[in-house]
Amino acid sequence: MAHLFRGGRVHQIFGADTDVGKTIFSTALALASAACPLDGSAPARTLNAHAAGEAVSYLKPVSTGAASEADEGHLRTFAPHVEAHTLVQFRDPVSPHVAARCDGGLPADAQDAVLVSRIGAWIHAHARGAALIETAGGVHSPGPSGTSQADLLRPLRLPTILVGSSRLGGISTTRAAYESLTLRGYDVDAVLLFPSPVYGNDVYLRDYLAERGVRVFTLGGPSSTSAWGPPPVRAPTTAQDCDAMRHFYLGVLHSEQGDSAISVVRHLRELHTQRIAALESLGKRAHEHCWWPFTQHARVGVDDVMAIDSAHGDFFAVHSPASPHSLLTPVLDGSASWWTQAVGHAHPRLALAAAYAAGRYGHVIFPSAAHEPAVRLAERLLATVGRGWAARVFYSDDGSTGMEVALKMALQASVRRYAGEAPDAETHARTARGRQPGSLGGRPPRVWEVLGLQGSYHGDTIGAMDACEPSVFSEHVEWYQGRGYWMAPPTVHLRAGRVHIEVADEGRDWPASGALAQLDTIDEVYDVEARLTTPLAAHYRRVVHAVLERLVVEERRRFGALVLEPLVMGAGGMIFVDPLFQRCLVDVVRERTDLFALSDPPLRSAAAGTTPPGSWRGLPVVFDEVFAGLGRLGFASGASALGVTPDVSCVAKILSGGTVPLAATLASDSLFRTFTSSTDKAHALLHGHSYTAHPVGCQVALETLDLLDAVRGAARGTSVWDRAGVERLSHLPRVDSVMALGTVLAVALRTDRAGYASEEAESVVRRLRTQAVPAACHPDLPPMAADAGETPAFPLHLRSLGHVVYIMASLTTPETVRERALSALEQVLQAAT
Amino acid sequence: MAHLFRGGRVHQIFGADTDVGKTIFSTALALASAACPLDGSAPARTLNAHAAGEAVSYLKPVSTGAASEADEGHLRTFAPHVEAHTLVQFRDPVSPHVAARCDGGLPADAQDAVLVSRIGAWIHAHARGAALIETAGGVHSPGPSGTSQADLLRPLRLPTILVGSSRLGGISTTRAAYESLTLRGYDVDAVLLFPSPVYGNDVYLRDYLAERGVRVFTLGGPSSTSAWGPPPVRAPTTAQDCDAMRHFYLGVLHSEQGDSAISVVRHLRELHTQRIAALESLGKRAHEHCWWPFTQHARVGVDDVMAIDSAHGDFFAVHSPASPHSLLTPVLDGSASWWTQAVGHAHPRLALAAAYAAGRYGHVIFPSAAHEPAVRLAERLLATVGRGWAARVFYSDDGSTGMEVALKMALQASVRRYAGEAPDAETHARTARGRQPGSLGGRPPRVWEVLGLQGSYHGDTIGAMDACEPSVFSEHVEWYQGRGYWMAPPTVHLRAGRVHIEVADEGRDWPASGALAQLDTIDEVYDVEARLTTPLAAHYRRVVHAVLERLVVEERRRFGALVLEPLVMGAGGMIFVDPLFQRCLVDVVRERTDLFALSDPPLRSAAAGTTPPGSWRGLPVVFDEVFAGLGRLGFASGASALGVTPDVSCVAKILSGGTVPLAATLASDSLFRTFTSSTDKAHALLHGHSYTAHPVGCQVALETLDLLDAVRGAARGTSVWDRAGVERLSHLPRVDSVMALGTVLAVALRTDRAGYASEEAESVVRRLRTQAVPAACHPDLPPMAADAGETPAFPLHLRSLGHVVYIMASLTTPETVRERALSALEQVLQAAT
Repeated sequence: MAHLFRGGRVHQIFGADTDVGKTIFSTALALASAACPLDGSAPARTLNAHAAGEAVSYLKPVSTGAASEADEGHLRTFAPHVEAHTLVQFRDPVSPHVAARCDGGLPADAQDAVLVSRIGAWIHAHARGAALIETAGGVHSPGPSGTSQADLLRPLRLPTILVGSSRLGGISTTRAAYESLTLRGYDVDAVLLFPSPVYGNDVYLRDYLAERGVRVFTLGGPSSTSAWGPPPVRAPTTAQDCDAMRHFYLGVLHSEQGDSAISVVRHLRELHTQRIAALESLGKRAHEHCWWPFTQHARVGVDDVMAIDSAHGDFFAVHSPASPHSLLTPVLDGSASWWTQAVGHAHPRLALAAAYAAGRYGHVIFPSAAHEPAVRLAERLLATVGRGWAARVFYSDDGSTGMEVALKMALQASVRRYAGEAPDAETHARTARGRQPGSLGGRPPRVWEVLGLQGSYHGDTIGAMDACEPSVFSEHVEWYQGRGYWMAPPTVHLRAGRVHIEVADEGRDWPASGALAQLDTIDEVYDVEARLTTPLAAHYRRVVHAVLERLVVEERRRFGALVLEPLVMGAGGMIFVDPLFQRCLVDVVRERTDLFALSDPPLRSAAAGTTPPGSWRGLPVVFDEVFAGLGRLGFASGASALGVTPDVSCVAKILSGGTVPLAATLASDSLFRTFTSSTDKAHALLHGHSYTAHPVGCQVALETLDLLDAVRGAARGTSVWDRAGVERLSHLPRVDSVMALGTVLAVALRTDRAGYASEEAESVVRRLRTQAVPAACHPDLPPMAADAGETPAFPLHLRSLGHVVYIMASLTTPETVRERALSALEQVLQAAT
Repeated sequence: MAHLFRGGRVHQIFGADTDVGKTIFSTALALASAACPLDGSAPARTLNAHAAGEAVSYLKPVSTGAASEADEGHLRTFAPHVEAHTLVQFRDPVSPHVAARCDGGLPADAQDAVLVSRIGAWIHAHARGAALIETAGGVHSPGPSGTSQADLLRPLRLPTILVGSSRLGGISTTRAAYESLTLRGYDVDAVLLFPSPVYGNDVYLRDYLAERGVRVFTLGGPSSTSAWGPPPVRAPTTAQDCDAMRHFYLGVLHSEQGDSAISVVRHLRELHTQRIAALESLGKRAHEHCWWPFTQHARVGVDDVMAIDSAHGDFFAVHSPASPHSLLTPVLDGSASWWTQAVGHAHPRLALAAAYAAGRYGHVIFPSAAHEPAVRLAERLLATVGRGWAARVFYSDDGSTGMEVALKMALQASVRRYAGEAPDAETHARTARGRQPGSLGGRPPRVWEVLGLQGSYHGDTIGAMDACEPSVFSEHVEWYQGRGYWMAPPTVHLRAGRVHIEVADEGRDWPASGALAQLDTIDEVYDVEARLTTPLAAHYRRVVHAVLERLVVEERRRFGALVLEPLVMGAGGMIFVDPLFQRCLVDVVRERTDLFALSDPPLRSAAAGTTPPGSWRGLPVVFDEVFAGLGRLGFASGASALGVTPDVSCVAKILSGGTVPLAATLASDSLFRTFTSSTDKAHALLHGHSYTAHPVGCQVALETLDLLDAVRGAARGTSVWDRAGVERLSHLPRVDSVMALGTVLAVALRTDRAGYASEEAESVVRRLRTQAVPAACHPDLPPMAADAGETPAFPLHLRSLGHVVYIMASLTTPETVRERALSALEQVLQAAT
């Protein structure tokens, strides 16, 4: 949980290397903070003028070596006004991770999460005036568990002071340390180092970092060898040593030769003020200048804006204006940031992967070209999502563009097979340049339509929209025109502990609306193979046959693709479709190779009933796995979930680990060959985006897939959510039904007005956002903070979908966090009755 | 220029810090490389068994201190079989940048580009067996000019050995150095360090780097204090010292306690073999598994694939299978990678900016949310591209999605003004769920169309395509239907030294095809204000008035937006539109507020003729600045080029500095308020992509705009291309006309078959790709390499557009590179007559 306080600056002090003077600079800053008046008046030229400035506290989270030699002791000696603490002390003067091993293993209170939580508690208790947290060794020196300190402390994301090295080689170690801090999203407020008259490190770094907006301060004082230099060498007696150091500190504080510690403190105070001002204005500035996606601005007040300072793991650090003291509060990213987060926010391996590809390539043009990240990712996707059926990967930028590509592939394949190579006269007239008074041209009397399910969503570009039924999303989009037929899908609901499969239809596709089956557990629903021989499967097949006959034979409609979101239609309202139905739909469409060649005027007779071996059958089947793919729902792929392979599939969202946009459309060789049957360029898939297959996205995707391989998510047909908790929710009076699969937990509320226009869920979401749920405290937030009235809640940032509230975890969300989230949701839903 | 050779391994050796033993490890590797037989047999246990292994050469590019103390000397002493060189020697034993200053300034032969070129020449001459290049100090220790060595050597992108630090704190410095190398796109083949029994650096780093696929070798030998440890301390006499070191090296070579230098060499050889195999298979693997954008695969043989190993500045490093020795050749990225590159490939500041945002946020959900990079970028775009007119920024992923957003904004504004708040009955029927037998529904008899220009291109999603006239791009896209009217635009051509403005039209929009005006210089064309009072301006206005009258009054068509690409229609074939015409078109459309309210059945009478103050007039004007924007063409924006502001504008491509996809659609307050006139969610712009406003893209964009501010590109109306050279091209017999503006140079070839289907330009491009152009040698490629038959050409990777060949520079392409590119193009075009 990141920290920022109105009443106090908190800085962490990292060293570019070990033994660069962190403790001396900490001491100097402690003295200067205390001595420098807050009212802008000149500081007194003594070491003990601390009444004038800030209260100062100091923390050494982990110290090694004899306690008497500890850095805390140095502080106590030279800045006795400072409240100094050490949290963990190891005896051996080696790296904490070695010391912990020597001391008999990692103590429970030094485990990463515990240590971070303890530091957080210390910060909450001491964030007034100036608080300094001094790390041990260099930026990547390991903490007790072995985790690098830069990684270990990242959840706190404190403003950072980097102590540079004034030694030979110090330019390099300081620049490298600066980069390691930057790539973890830290803001370096200042770089401090001792004078480096021979090597000129300070001069070099000053220019270099000024270009990057970072101030460098060279701090020296009277030393053994010069009037202005690094600290004095150790004097023969302790008393002499202390005198020399005091003399030195006094010089550092007020130096007029180089920079002074007072000037550093003023700079840090200035940045602190700017940081608060930036955070406090952030929401307002977004409210004024940004046009948000999917947002009715007239309903968003400036106070409704969630100003996100940073994010880590499952949590945003969000501006909390209501809080009297702490300006940031942790908020659970309950939608996994629109379903993009796979391994948590700000994973350092993904940041480094992105940087590597940016440093190796930037971006390089892709047509007829090859680069390692794109080729390796294609091979990897073909071996996993595309295993057994896909031969090609087409890259684009997001789910919407990926689905446009999928639709172009599938439709063109159908047209070529069923209508022949040459465009018919109408198509020709439509596309011939300048033949018409306008260029709108004549549209063929009947378009090639898609077959899909009600509630589907494939993106917001017009082609992707046209593949969805008319809805509130498209009502005011002038160029939208639904080009398809969407069957009412049977859906799965856990209601009062029982699993119901039912369908809502006005007798169009189904004999009647209502119950189709009941099952004991959710798991059973997803054992598709076992259910294939049930009467329900036979029923599904009969219904699909009948609908297809009606559409093609009676209504003489012309179809070019079957387009499905396997398992769950997310944007449509977290609709859990019975996977058995999707399986039967695919099977029946593929059996009816005779049907889709029917047309009036007749289509190519050659195509009717004959399908080249290895080729797609009936209609090209497109899986939109943007939401459900890559293990999000406990299945490696749509194909593994339904037990049937598609001809085209699109993946995106978690593909790139929640960092940058990237989509991949996989296609079978049969579909690919449609576009290579002639050498005519016009017959190619003339689609592309500037950043197609951008190396940054591909490299991050490869790293993400590596990380996901190590994650044990939900098993097939189960969820990561506590089974008993989910069942409890299904009994609540306010709740109509519940479903949990993989990382998703969705709660449909009882309402008279279902669907996107419903405001039922939004009210629950608002309540979760603002209401205190004391039983579910943030794990990083200590009890005393809750007692002190500091954000005691466990705020969840959820997105509502009409009458459905859902929570989505990432694949690495800890069990404790999931438990608290479920509990918070349960309490609010109970209170809402 | 990156390097890889079949016959020899070249490695660069970086240190995690200064004084970590780089020279000792270099010597050990030199000895081991020579001693380790290539046939796999066991190496002899002596120091001088070098006949069995590889020829070894060693380079110290820059050395400081007395020449007798130089690292090269150590090599000569202990590995006398090695050919050792130093390129630049400074007297003072300090960092090279300080030494250069002390020695009287930077010598000409130590300037960055010269030094890299000299190292390149050395590599070419010594790339047989094993070549080692030892850097000075740490990874970021400055070279003579002050540039960090990691940045300085990046153009060569050599496989890297990192010497880790076994000191206290060495874990941190080694990890940080590893990250700095990685974020510059280097591959670290191995980390070597001395035993670190107390601190355990080797043990820690071994585990840490194994997870990242990097081998760590701990190399020790018999030392003063132990049987296996770091090098011995200096002995009293030189002879004793030498004996002790020889003893140590013998131990390091064959150590059985830790790793051995022999095992390192075997590992490096193995990686070298893998690297070559990966590069040699890269093109084939892409050819088998990828589906390229805009590519007719049937026309691409496996040998046509450009396998890109990496990129830097303006050049790709491309696999050159034909070369007998060097496997990589520099190829100029002549299309700026589909017009995305602004500051050259792989800029380290962009890589670090991407890493920072990934480390601070990953991605965070954007609706009703705010984060610094998105808000700051919005403010910055509003103050530049949107200065004086735009109030809002909507983010999306690429030019195509950005234009879909722009179209939705503009069309909805027109519909609301001209058709009223409520959808008409037809629209309602179209969008009402389930009212129709199918869901296709009835389309309104007349759609809302766009007004545009022939040759325009706005992207490949269906909505963006529908805003373009029918063309070869859309011929085989089943769901495409042009929804607009596209006027024939007057275009600008430099032909035999004179500037011609002409129009090609069959008498539909214009009285006749042909010449409209001649001007003396290209500059004059872009002085739009001065030309507004010319007779041509009056002519343009008359023609536009007449066309509008015909379309709306006679043909009763209904328009919703004017959509223009200011200055140049890139994908349409580098069509330079007369900016005066685009200006007049906008002006006339805005004057005719009466016209667009006409309709049958009548539209809202209230709207006719009255426009709220500050609101858009006539039609919303959309600028597609994806290609032309942000200074690419010498104008800060389309508005500054035409002297008239739009109501909506879309920028992308160079916005994110050529790294990751990002687009921004700017809109006026007037358009924004269209969507907030009610609180109904359905009236909002219900559009969004998962990664909307992704922090990585926004942060990189901010850094790019900072970098571009420091670049001095072409002035208004001029180009970065040599004026005399451009004029010479315009006189060539093969050339129809030429145009140069900003970074673009386009050459239209004489042909009977103009347009996208033409293969004229492709043949020129193929010739440039394969033909040697000896006069135009790559600046990094030394003459001797050319003499030796090693890629003497200056290959340009161009994209052809039908009968047009073009070159696009980035905004930082050096003049020498532009000169050579222009010269190469001229030679090929001359030869082609």
